Amino acid sequence: MDIDLIFIFEMIGTVAFAVAGSLVGILKKMDIFGIAVLGMTTAVGGGIIRDLVLGRTPPVAFVRPVYALTAIVTSLIVFLPAVRNFVEHHQKGYEGVMRLMDAIGLGAFTVIGAEAAFTCVPDPNVFLAVFTGAVTGVGGGALRDVLAGEVPYIFVKHFYACASIIGAIAYCILRGFLGIELAMILGVAVVVVLRLLAAKYRWTLPRP
Amino acid sequence: MDIDLIFIFEMIGTVAFAVAGSLVGILKKMDIFGIAVLGMTTAVGGGIIRDLVLGRTPPVAFVRPVYALTAIVTSLIVFLPAVRNFVEHHQKGYEGVMRLMDAIGLGAFTVIGAEAAFTCVPDPNVFLAVFTGAVTGVGGGALRDVLAGEVPYIFVKHFYACASIIGAIAYCILRGFLGIELAMILGVAVVVVLRLLAAKYRWTLPRP
Amino acid sequence: MDIDLIFIFEMIGTVAFAVAGSLVGILKKMDIFGIAVLGMTTAVGGGIIRDLVLGRTPPVAFVRPVYALTAIVTSLIVFLPAVRNFVEHHQKGYEGVMRLMDAIGLGAFTVIGAEAAFTCVPDPNVFLAVFTGAVTGVGGGALRDVLAGEVPYIFVKHFYACASIIGAIAYCILRGFLGIELAMILGVAVVVVLRLLAAKYRWTLPRP
Repeated sequence: MDIDLIFIFEMIGTVAFAVAGSLVGILKKMDIFGIAVLGMTTAVGGGIIRDLVLGRTPPVAFVRPVYALTAIVTSLIVFLPAVRNFVEHHQKGYEGVMRLMDAIGLGAFTVIGAEAAFTCVPDPNVFLAVFTGAVTGVGGGALRDVLAGEVPYIFVKHFYACASIIGAIAYCILRGFLGIELAMILGVAVVVVLRLLAAKYRWTLPRP
Repeated sequence: MDIDLIFIFEMIGTVAFAVAGSLVGILKKMDIFGIAVLGMTTAVGGGIIRDLVLGRTPPVAFVRPVYALTAIVTSLIVFLPAVRNFVEHHQKGYEGVMRLMDAIGLGAFTVIGAEAAFTCVPDPNVFLAVFTGAVTGVGGGALRDVLAGEVPYIFVKHFYACASIIGAIAYCILRGFLGIELAMILGVAVVVVLRLLAAKYRWTLPRP
Repeated sequence: MDIDLIFIFEMIGTVAFAVAGSLVGILKKMDIFGIAVLGMTTAVGGGIIRDLVLGRTPPVAFVRPVYALTAIVTSLIVFLPAVRNFVEHHQKGYEGVMRLMDAIGLGAFTVIGAEAAFTCVPDPNVFLAVFTGAVTGVGGGALRDVLAGEVPYIFVKHFYACASIIGAIAYCILRGFLGIELAMILGVAVVVVLRLLAAKYRWTLPRP
């Protein structure tokens, strides 16, 4: 049952990540193909990197195309001028909703990515599991930024990537005590809380 | 016999892609090493991404180095001032020939990439086969643009990537009815016709 | 015994590469997370690309996290203002030491990368072994430059990548005559000598 809940969280994240990615494409004056690729990359790019590192080929994103296709459809909807107009007139509420959806997606992608290390590698070390968790959470956005000719956003400001890393560590610890399902729910909760607190209080990391 | 024809198409494409890639390196004032890497990346980079996604390692580009070495030699020839002078004096004819060669290469890379999904994965879904087809066709050029510090050309204008996607879809449909060889020839034809029509009539995709 | 020597060379290289990577992050005004990622990418990114190409998953960098963790700790030390102040007051000596450490690392990464092709693929062709050698040596730095929004340094100037390529070729030739251990030591020596001569005499490659 809780696994289904995680699937719902994943789909919420897929939509939120695709919206964020397609908006970067629109800002960059890309055409509809570029916008759809950026939306899809943001949503499934992190999972593809994770699966290549774990040797799981073809990556889940290609075996179960529901995520990629959801991201493409989302990007095409964002492309519609009527949709963007509506959003511009409801900017404030829109931002809050998107931030929550993005946080849920970041959490779901993180715990699923960390769990993938345990599924694919016998007795993985924590470094690998935290990497696969965090890269599933933030790798798609970093890849999108590189494709858009930008330095990845997560390197420059905000606490964003750290929320994913801390959530992945929490998942790895809790998993041994509470089992996969409960650890996933709690891992998502850790990421959501940290990411929303970071946004509210504008947490930033030290810079030189 | 028709497979040999596809190999000839591939070599034509390898040369055309390497020329395009090394010209980007020259424009960017790279040295001869950078120019050769960009020429090679444009020619074989898409196939390498495809093989990593399909779990075929080492990728074909390394097992059969004929493509990569052809691309490197092509790039070194393009580097020669005498060659570039000759081209500048025959600009118009040169552009037409290169466009045709590039279209043939795009077609050959697309159908070979789509077929690779059928070779490597039992009963692949269409999304995977279209992805491996299109990424073989346009992935090398996108990787080259990223390495050159540019937003991938295919995201910003022209119908280019769509010709590859439509060709891959056509190949996947025709393959079941006509067999691999005939479907490959027809798939290449679809891509070549679409890519040349798009260039002639300056087809573009909608932008926001 | 000589293998242990190579491990020492690798660790020297890991530190030198992490310093170079984190300095790019500092120049780009990244936060501490971005700086650590750039340091780590410079040190282990080339090896990860090599292992993905060779189908060795998870890559060594994740199975034996000592390299990545050393790179992260190095980056955090470079981040400290006191450390950077000290370096600024000893600029000249620092540059010489770093150049030697970087040269040793380039050599060690190159021969280990070339040897990985022989370990993972039965009877690999020279093109593959030279590629895996050179990409282990210079791929991390190229990836770092892409993540920092720069055209990879190795494409634009200096002899750097050629030292790695020549070292990898030398290793592949010597390996059959002298055995792995001695060939590794000599391969490292070739790279170190070429890289230091190139720096001293400002060797550059031809440009258009």
